[in-house]
Amino acid sequence: MKDLTLTHEVLEALTTRVLMGMGAPQGSAETVARSLVLSNLVGHDSHGVIRLVEYSGWVQGGQIIPGALPRVEWEKQATALIDGEWGWGQMASALATQTVIASAQEFGTATAVLSRTNHVGRLGEYVDEIAQAGMMGIAFCNTGGEVVAPFGGIKKVLGTNPFAWSVPGVAGYNLVLDFSTAVVAAGKVILAAMNDQEIESGALIDKNGIPSTRAKDLEDGGALLAFGGHKGSGLSILIDVAAGMLAGNLPATISKSGFGNGTVIMAVDISRFVPLDFFRSITEQFAGTIHGAGAPGNSVVLMPGEMEAKTKELRLASGVVVSGGVRQSILEVAAKYGVPVPELGRSTPDL
Amino acid sequence: MKDLTLTHEVLEALTTRVLMGMGAPQGSAETVARSLVLSNLVGHDSHGVIRLVEYSGWVQGGQIIPGALPRVEWEKQATALIDGEWGWGQMASALATQTVIASAQEFGTATAVLSRTNHVGRLGEYVDEIAQAGMMGIAFCNTGGEVVAPFGGIKKVLGTNPFAWSVPGVAGYNLVLDFSTAVVAAGKVILAAMNDQEIESGALIDKNGIPSTRAKDLEDGGALLAFGGHKGSGLSILIDVAAGMLAGNLPATISKSGFGNGTVIMAVDISRFVPLDFFRSITEQFAGTIHGAGAPGNSVVLMPGEMEAKTKELRLASGVVVSGGVRQSILEVAAKYGVPVPELGRSTPDL
Repeated sequence: MKDLTLTHEVLEALTTRVLMGMGAPQGSAETVARSLVLSNLVGHDSHGVIRLVEYSGWVQGGQIIPGALPRVEWEKQATALIDGEWGWGQMASALATQTVIASAQEFGTATAVLSRTNHVGRLGEYVDEIAQAGMMGIAFCNTGGEVVAPFGGIKKVLGTNPFAWSVPGVAGYNLVLDFSTAVVAAGKVILAAMNDQEIESGALIDKNGIPSTRAKDLEDGGALLAFGGHKGSGLSILIDVAAGMLAGNLPATISKSGFGNGTVIMAVDISRFVPLDFFRSITEQFAGTIHGAGAPGNSVVLMPGEMEAKTKELRLASGVVVSGGVRQSILEVAAKYGVPVPELGRSTPDL
Repeated sequence: MKDLTLTHEVLEALTTRVLMGMGAPQGSAETVARSLVLSNLVGHDSHGVIRLVEYSGWVQGGQIIPGALPRVEWEKQATALIDGEWGWGQMASALATQTVIASAQEFGTATAVLSRTNHVGRLGEYVDEIAQAGMMGIAFCNTGGEVVAPFGGIKKVLGTNPFAWSVPGVAGYNLVLDFSTAVVAAGKVILAAMNDQEIESGALIDKNGIPSTRAKDLEDGGALLAFGGHKGSGLSILIDVAAGMLAGNLPATISKSGFGNGTVIMAVDISRFVPLDFFRSITEQFAGTIHGAGAPGNSVVLMPGEMEAKTKELRLASGVVVSGGVRQSILEVAAKYGVPVPELGRSTPDL
């Protein structure tokens, strides 16, 4: 199929319908659709509407209960436990984010833990919301499915365990950092392996621990590497233990479920320490220094979150490109649930 | 001078005397000495007693007020501001650590910010104490003196901005991660430059942004690189803004003071979410998996904090090696204050 460009409204509407087809109540479907399309808008298509395929499989496998709604299991002073009830991870994350912001408004700092939660989506979305509320946000989660070897090792025992961090930003964007602790996303390597392609060096070792660029080595007993040597590997280990244990889904290598995101979200109310206006004006000045830190004549050096904000502005105006492969995949998922998706055309190879 | 091996008690005692010579009250001197020698014990000699040289310069320059004591400026629910009063950073950090632990015991989570604080020492020490209290600890600080270029840039605009993270561990050690966001410590490169040595590749660029291993390139307009590409660089930027702004010492490139550590310490009481015994037993099991993740026949892969614990055990038993250079430097500092240090011998080249 050919690529197709859709407005984000159209993409959200059709994604909502497909999710409702899977059994999601309208409110949940709208929240999840908004979250997925937001990932497309900011340029992280790997976390965008393509995830409908995976979610459909989980709904059919019983790992996602589409009608389940998250709830605050308990809240005690500056801590809260959110029970995802194995519903949509984005719903649980939205509740956790609201809870942690309200709690940090009262106590100055707060921590929410999400238990029994499916794929939470893109952590950057939630810490961005915390920054939008004038706070510093930290979020991390462990991921099922061991694909990463610890520094000095060759066996896959860690997930891609992402980490996100934000503070309120400047005109147009908050400072949002959001990264996988693996050098590259597992999905990217699996895709490259399907097409028998190479991946960048420094990201993968083969089954004997030898550095490799052959994507197929991941399935042939190899492993992804953590970014930044022992430092990124240490972050991944801390995330797996801290998030896995606090959330109760356990470190990936012990739970062996290959599933669920044990997630921790923290917030600190900045205005207790410094007036937010001053925070923003100095950060603006700091951003100017970073922008100018490149070689003479080179393009500006970007702040965390700036690329995403620029991409979002562009795609809000010109639409989101849905690749032929993604079109085909979503049409197939929609067909399973008898949901018509005329916006993507008919599922025939000649389109 | 020859290297000399001293017990940690002897090293602590002489370090305490030198600090008292600089004007520190006995309690402060003991705390700072214990902190410095602990860094030697766990194998991080760069943060050990050699710092007496730097501290002496700061005391003489008026940046450290040796008799000043830190105080809790304010405490409001789960947040606190510690005023270091420009005294010893280790004193302020000890107060902040105690404050954040007590606050997290009451509120479940807490954040303490340290303002007007000199060199705080090794962040790993403080998050280790938090872990020892059964909590997850996070600490980060911005450092004065720009030596690191952001990812994609070539100009020195960031400090080495360290990050530390801990959770309670297993028999013998807590899981403690503590790293500089620069690939290598600035001190190491400066030392290599003095001896006209090379440093590891991937850590340094020259003034034109070309990768270099020539240590002298740092002073010749080059810059250190952040670890892990855009991820480590993003961490460094978030630390500089978050810690610099919350603590009021501002990001290094704006304050231009070249001095002080804006520091944030956070704690989460784990027992609110999971029984600590269960946490520890699963972590022990997880550590076993990490240990066995190496190539067959290879040595075990270590957990964060494990190397430090092993080194400490060894050095508690066999003593701390004080190199000839460090001996000479401490003798010179001690002589300035008229403090006799017979444990290190006389300051003559033939020793």
